[in-house]
Amino acid sequence: MAANPQPRVKRPHGDVVNLSHGSGGKAMRDLIEGLILPALGASSATPLEDQARIDVPEVLGNGGRIAFTTDSYVVDPLSFPGGDIGTLAINGTVNDLAVGGARPIVLSCSLILEEGLPFTILEKMMCSMARAAQAARVRIVTGDTKVVPRGSADKLFINTAGIGIIPKGVHLEIARIRPGDQLLLNGHLGDHGAAILKARGDLALDADVESDCQPLHGIIAALLAAAPGTRCIRDVTRGGLATVLNEFAGGAGVGMRIVEDSIPVRPVVRGICEVLGLDPLYLANEGKLLAVVPKEEAGAALEALRSCPEGTYAGMIGEVLAGPPGRVVLSSHFGGERIVDMLVGEQLPRIC
Amino acid sequence: MAANPQPRVKRPHGDVVNLSHGSGGKAMRDLIEGLILPALGASSATPLEDQARIDVPEVLGNGGRIAFTTDSYVVDPLSFPGGDIGTLAINGTVNDLAVGGARPIVLSCSLILEEGLPFTILEKMMCSMARAAQAARVRIVTGDTKVVPRGSADKLFINTAGIGIIPKGVHLEIARIRPGDQLLLNGHLGDHGAAILKARGDLALDADVESDCQPLHGIIAALLAAAPGTRCIRDVTRGGLATVLNEFAGGAGVGMRIVEDSIPVRPVVRGICEVLGLDPLYLANEGKLLAVVPKEEAGAALEALRSCPEGTYAGMIGEVLAGPPGRVVLSSHFGGERIVDMLVGEQLPRIC
Repeated sequence: MAANPQPRVKRPHGDVVNLSHGSGGKAMRDLIEGLILPALGASSATPLEDQARIDVPEVLGNGGRIAFTTDSYVVDPLSFPGGDIGTLAINGTVNDLAVGGARPIVLSCSLILEEGLPFTILEKMMCSMARAAQAARVRIVTGDTKVVPRGSADKLFINTAGIGIIPKGVHLEIARIRPGDQLLLNGHLGDHGAAILKARGDLALDADVESDCQPLHGIIAALLAAAPGTRCIRDVTRGGLATVLNEFAGGAGVGMRIVEDSIPVRPVVRGICEVLGLDPLYLANEGKLLAVVPKEEAGAALEALRSCPEGTYAGMIGEVLAGPPGRVVLSSHFGGERIVDMLVGEQLPRIC
Repeated sequence: MAANPQPRVKRPHGDVVNLSHGSGGKAMRDLIEGLILPALGASSATPLEDQARIDVPEVLGNGGRIAFTTDSYVVDPLSFPGGDIGTLAINGTVNDLAVGGARPIVLSCSLILEEGLPFTILEKMMCSMARAAQAARVRIVTGDTKVVPRGSADKLFINTAGIGIIPKGVHLEIARIRPGDQLLLNGHLGDHGAAILKARGDLALDADVESDCQPLHGIIAALLAAAPGTRCIRDVTRGGLATVLNEFAGGAGVGMRIVEDSIPVRPVVRGICEVLGLDPLYLANEGKLLAVVPKEEAGAALEALRSCPEGTYAGMIGEVLAGPPGRVVLSSHFGGERIVDMLVGEQLPRIC
């Protein structure tokens, strides 16, 4: 085995992993780009994409490409209003494929079970996966099952990896973003984060809120048909909208401006945020997407989003600016402006 | 969402998951076939393959197919003589692809980190993955990172999923096994299991043993070139050789006979087994394969295996019988015969 060249690892602050490293925000990015990618031998300039696109010329005809993604789900509790770890494990991975323009085709399912997990719970979660897979029209085709002694894991972790097919001519990439492009969001922010908070009993209030956990490949297909010039799409999950905006702005070397009043947040979620001191821009979602669309196609794109049940409350929430590179600003309700940074620290552990 | 037809779940004995359900043996099979597959909506008659083969006619030219597999690694301790969770996570998944005749091309890497994991350990394991991937000529192309609070996981779990390309004309399937076929093994049994026992300090003796953790796609390519009629191949991991033999015999509806004296086991591993009351036939391996080859190609197959460093100690260890269906017998050193059943119960938790 050849010796590996010494990787240029730039460890994050501190000596050990802490919860902020799983937040989806800046600390996680530092860990992945500073330690994991360099140690794995990848360039730390590799963009932080959730999906790989694979060209295999000798077997792939017609110019299609394979999309490949993976996610481990560790949500706590296993069930919450609007979903459970099973629906999350299907929809989360389907969405990671769909935002690259891929048609999801097959998923794997790898389970880590804690000794003592009741069969009733395992069965419920597997049935839930089956229903979600059926609804999203993907097949679970391979799997793995590990059991660890009591105390070495918490009940049930699920990993799903997914393969999709990217049709010829579809090239959604952050690098294609241009000043003047419009930012489109398909609905209310923060429902998933609020639903998890409710399920944990952290809320005294009896808030009527459900996770937005849903597959997005249908609405994305509609969007791409109506606005074929769409630059790129991202599902808005851990780290919230603020993190996606920062990754887009940083990756494309552009600025972005969003308008507070155009961003839909349910009153109940806004209330929870006010009580707990949270910001909906950083709350997790499991059925939301941000699309960057050229100005001339933005009207058609919005109409396409609104024509789908996943996009009833879709809206244009802002635009791409020439600069400063990487800076995201919010025009607030009160007429001011503030910088929207990446999530620093950790908002809610085990949100997905 | 359409209601799912009620799955015909046949729960294993008891109410909760126990360690035997992760053993690779009979209890795990009962859990997967009785509960997980039916609940997922798959037919419980689906053979228990580690690899899915996917036909995507609209994008795959030349008759090639995609192979897709996943494994979560939860080995304890993270490092052991001859390897660590990083080498395991690469080689285990590479081997799951290779035994289907696939050329591994890309892997995913999904991490579950326990709060408090030292960066030094994480970095060591990632560098180890990088070296193993380089040695196996696969690329890690996508990933995910989750962090759970202290006590909700044990240090580090790694999931790798893998995609490979199965060349046109390669069809390795259990159903192709025929009476008269020869059983070939590429080397010593039980090294991995013994190395884990040593690493845990469960052995008072200072045994000089290393895990056999290694990628097998090179030796499999050599085997298939020399013996293109090869029926099927399986990597011999959790549950040991006994479990693979039983899965093959049950799946093909044939009998099998193995000859004790032809099965290589290192003296040190045999000694450990005698001291601890373990059977090498059930010990885990991470660099061993069992191939079923038609009699007329067995000589060429053996020569091909022995020509590779992974097969220096390869041998013919038995043959396929017409029946009784599903029964595996061992001709012992002392001239007797005994039935080799699947692993019942659990031998070593967190072996991989």
